[in-house]
Amino acid sequence: MTSLVDRRHLAFVLDEVLDAPALLDLPRFSHVDRDSAVAMLDAAERLARDHFAPSFSHLDANEPRIENGRVVLPAEIASALAALRDGGFFAVMADPQDGGVGLPRSYANAALVMLQAANVSIANYAFLTMSAAELLAQHGTPDQKARYMAPMLEGRFLGTMALSEPHAGSSLGDIRTTARIRPDGSYALSGTKMWISGGEHDMGDNIVHLMLARIEGAPAGVKGISLFVVPRKRLDAEGRPTEWNHIALSGLNHKMGQRGTVNTILNVGEDGETIGEIVGGPGQGLACMFTMMNEARIAVSMGAVAHASAGYLHALAYARERVQGRHPDAKDPASPQVPLTAHADVRRMLLQQKAAAEGGLALGLYVSGLADMKAGAEEAADRTEAALLLDFLTPIFKGWISEEMLRASDAAIQVLGGAGYTRDHPLEQHYRDNRLNPIHEGTNGIQAIDMLGRKAVMEEGQALALFLARVRHAVLAASQRGDEIADLANTLAAAADLVESTTADLKALRGTHGVRPFLANATHYLDLVGRVAFAWIWLEQARVASTALVAAEGSEADFYRGKIATCRYVFSHRLPQAFQLAGLLSRADPTYLEFKEQWF
Amino acid sequence: MTSLVDRRHLAFVLDEVLDAPALLDLPRFSHVDRDSAVAMLDAAERLARDHFAPSFSHLDANEPRIENGRVVLPAEIASALAALRDGGFFAVMADPQDGGVGLPRSYANAALVMLQAANVSIANYAFLTMSAAELLAQHGTPDQKARYMAPMLEGRFLGTMALSEPHAGSSLGDIRTTARIRPDGSYALSGTKMWISGGEHDMGDNIVHLMLARIEGAPAGVKGISLFVVPRKRLDAEGRPTEWNHIALSGLNHKMGQRGTVNTILNVGEDGETIGEIVGGPGQGLACMFTMMNEARIAVSMGAVAHASAGYLHALAYARERVQGRHPDAKDPASPQVPLTAHADVRRMLLQQKAAAEGGLALGLYVSGLADMKAGAEEAADRTEAALLLDFLTPIFKGWISEEMLRASDAAIQVLGGAGYTRDHPLEQHYRDNRLNPIHEGTNGIQAIDMLGRKAVMEEGQALALFLARVRHAVLAASQRGDEIADLANTLAAAADLVESTTADLKALRGTHGVRPFLANATHYLDLVGRVAFAWIWLEQARVASTALVAAEGSEADFYRGKIATCRYVFSHRLPQAFQLAGLLSRADPTYLEFKEQWF
Repeated sequence: MTSLVDRRHLAFVLDEVLDAPALLDLPRFSHVDRDSAVAMLDAAERLARDHFAPSFSHLDANEPRIENGRVVLPAEIASALAALRDGGFFAVMADPQDGGVGLPRSYANAALVMLQAANVSIANYAFLTMSAAELLAQHGTPDQKARYMAPMLEGRFLGTMALSEPHAGSSLGDIRTTARIRPDGSYALSGTKMWISGGEHDMGDNIVHLMLARIEGAPAGVKGISLFVVPRKRLDAEGRPTEWNHIALSGLNHKMGQRGTVNTILNVGEDGETIGEIVGGPGQGLACMFTMMNEARIAVSMGAVAHASAGYLHALAYARERVQGRHPDAKDPASPQVPLTAHADVRRMLLQQKAAAEGGLALGLYVSGLADMKAGAEEAADRTEAALLLDFLTPIFKGWISEEMLRASDAAIQVLGGAGYTRDHPLEQHYRDNRLNPIHEGTNGIQAIDMLGRKAVMEEGQALALFLARVRHAVLAASQRGDEIADLANTLAAAADLVESTTADLKALRGTHGVRPFLANATHYLDLVGRVAFAWIWLEQARVASTALVAAEGSEADFYRGKIATCRYVFSHRLPQAFQLAGLLSRADPTYLEFKEQWF
Repeated sequence: MTSLVDRRHLAFVLDEVLDAPALLDLPRFSHVDRDSAVAMLDAAERLARDHFAPSFSHLDANEPRIENGRVVLPAEIASALAALRDGGFFAVMADPQDGGVGLPRSYANAALVMLQAANVSIANYAFLTMSAAELLAQHGTPDQKARYMAPMLEGRFLGTMALSEPHAGSSLGDIRTTARIRPDGSYALSGTKMWISGGEHDMGDNIVHLMLARIEGAPAGVKGISLFVVPRKRLDAEGRPTEWNHIALSGLNHKMGQRGTVNTILNVGEDGETIGEIVGGPGQGLACMFTMMNEARIAVSMGAVAHASAGYLHALAYARERVQGRHPDAKDPASPQVPLTAHADVRRMLLQQKAAAEGGLALGLYVSGLADMKAGAEEAADRTEAALLLDFLTPIFKGWISEEMLRASDAAIQVLGGAGYTRDHPLEQHYRDNRLNPIHEGTNGIQAIDMLGRKAVMEEGQALALFLARVRHAVLAASQRGDEIADLANTLAAAADLVESTTADLKALRGTHGVRPFLANATHYLDLVGRVAFAWIWLEQARVASTALVAAEGSEADFYRGKIATCRYVFSHRLPQAFQLAGLLSRADPTYLEFKEQWF
């Protein structure tokens, strides 16, 4: 297996469905031409194969441990990150005026998903660093950009997000870490941070924590939260790391998967001053942090897509090779056995995975393209539209896609049967690694509340309207082909109407009964819009495929026919639940609100 | 937490829903009175707490390994099995005329599920031994019963099922292990067996393998398969274990979970004779084995129920204790946080688990009661009816319930968020342990083919008719209460009609288009009947609860109200998919058949 992401599908999405090459004509991305963008994909594939994939199982079996108060990591992590650094990948997405390569996210995420598929535990360190750098690019002072962001883009300093605390996981408004201003305008931080990925290790020259804290005397809740850049080692006047900044490792979390990414509990300011600089203004912490969290939410579900893709390609290879049993109408027990792919039920599981992996990747790159347009479109109206759609699709991509990808990882195990349940095959680790994605960077329950409580209704429903307009545009385009996908277009049109009417029903409910019943079924609402978005991105693929099929032959024709047939699968097997969910939502099903605590 | 299975619910199912005490009036079970049956439950709860639960995590972290060619297991397994033996549990289900206790399976499985919830890796050794003993009770000669079964009922010898081979997992008709008759009528076996749980270790005095092999010259396929009892150590004339029987350990499988149950690859007859005795006649192997496999299929899903139950009670305890966030209409960020149970979305996840764990247990004990009636009903017609229904419900319980329980285990992790993803909480291990259940003892794809291809149509549809009659009887009984569950009764009546019409449509399809399209959507058919069976067992519980509620007060009233509200949840959230599935089945959705191999 040369790659854990299908390059033909990747090219199909970038070139044929999304027209990503057109992005390179925008001034924002003019530093990159198409050849160098594709060269980046090739480089990522080689890095994934040569430096990431080989330690996939090893990092799982040899998780980080503490020795003499220090974190010990397998050496393969540092060497893979060094290769990544040598390839210039830490700066791949950053703006050229900040010293970055300026590659559109559409290409960058297409490259990085190959690294995630090969070994997400290593890729995480790079993602955290890149999105921390991006936060400083947007909110840091010139001095902070020079001292912290620049070394991160070079891969010399690694980044973290230091948000949660032991008593405050999802409820960030309740964090207690305090920041006391010092005479020189810097801050001394004090408190305990929990779930900090990459929070302590000896890799690189420094670790840069982007840490939320509450300035002494700040108001309660999110308004009182500020953001600080807090290095593991303090910097001297020339920006060189010097003495320890009193960030003490207080323990490690031992995870089900993604074990190579060390997950730490940190005490700051316990036996000496932990000094940080404020980023943005006082009370602006959560707003600034959302720059990084929104990046991270996309990265999380790109990771989920990576696992689904790797799992699918592994399961497919196994199913093609392994012979077992016969067709149900085969009478002769001495006749040769057939490959697993000949069994309808195995095809069911493979089709579920193909739909998930390829649809997830297509939606992820679509979302990445919106981020590119938000940053680089020439017209302000286009930038605004892209920003609104990006906001709208983020909880769908993070929340719904991460669950659908996990279901795909589960199906991959089932294709292999007992073999899939063992550590002799990578499927069980892919599942365990993937299981984190519906949890971190805002659990999917939080995503659902963000979806319905904010994204579906914000700006007077403009984001929703833009989404529905794009869906209906796809419906129209598919209808006009007048061929085998016209019936699918009609179904999607009905589903889009349903999203619209269901949202209206929910808004009316909020008006009459308040926010509690409005949000009580938010997870089902996310499931509804998620299925519609998934069907939409598949109809787009099927439309492009049906056009291309006319002139295609051989394996190319099979490729396009596979797209159309997979789209049909999505419409017959993954979309119909949306219609049932809409009913439940529109009648304001009261089950969760009315179930009393003492009835459990 | 005193128990990982809710004793109040257990008593509700046994006493109030199923009337299990009435079984004790049957001659077959007259050796046991109600007090001793309940005492067995209490003893199991103590054993679970004192001898099984303490090593739950330890066995996961210290999996079996090979040292000097021998399997090394943590000592906690042998000591727990010794406690189980001392409690007489190995003989709990066996017929008193075979030296057993004669406890109905309804009670035995209710006791054993507590051991499975506490530590399934240990319980597996006991289950394998008990069902191997049961096989010999039904198919063994008096001599085999004395020499092999009796020591198993005493817990001195442990049992295995040795069916699969490296090239033949699901396709048992293709096994290659051979048996050559010896001058004394015994057989010399030769071949390789794969996935053998408990296949090699030093516990007990001996291991008794029930092994499938092909007598030299036997016809191809299942007709040529015979069953042999093959001890690890040969027995002398007095039945004492003596020299090694040349069953060589060739390797261990390293599983995602259930790690305490050693899983082996065995070579037989490689460097010396492996001698076995035939059980049943030549060619009767698979028929005999099904005695054990059907037992094992029930045990597998009782294990799945155990994980769902343990996960639910853990998650509920955590959710009640952990405060996080506020109601969506709380304006004051300084107001106290609320427990997780106050959030609608957490209640969603807890309700899913409560429905799964309690509904799964109710269905499992219903199925156990059918086994009791099959063995002990006084009228032949009742025994036949119970046998048919047991056959019908076995793939539903194994296939559908094991998946629904796994979904519950997944929800348990999600309730805890990041904490659920760590090994500091038992949820992630419960998930990993539980993931095996949709795979072993016939993957759920195999169960689906058994369901539709055999059980739904066998005896001219009699089993299906009996099932539908029971469902409709429950509908009638619920309707007659004329209270808050009457609407649910109507819904279930419609669902039962749908199962009937869908099955008729599928049979017609088989007639016109053959068995391939008939079976192509078998998994969806199993999902359809599974949801209907699950709703049915919940309606039964709700009906009993609604009757009892009239006279109940305080926590008892809450208990019954919880049952009724959970039933409503099942009907609004778990059953509706059945209606969509029926449509897909009735229109003979061709997706899986028509998707070509080269399109993947």
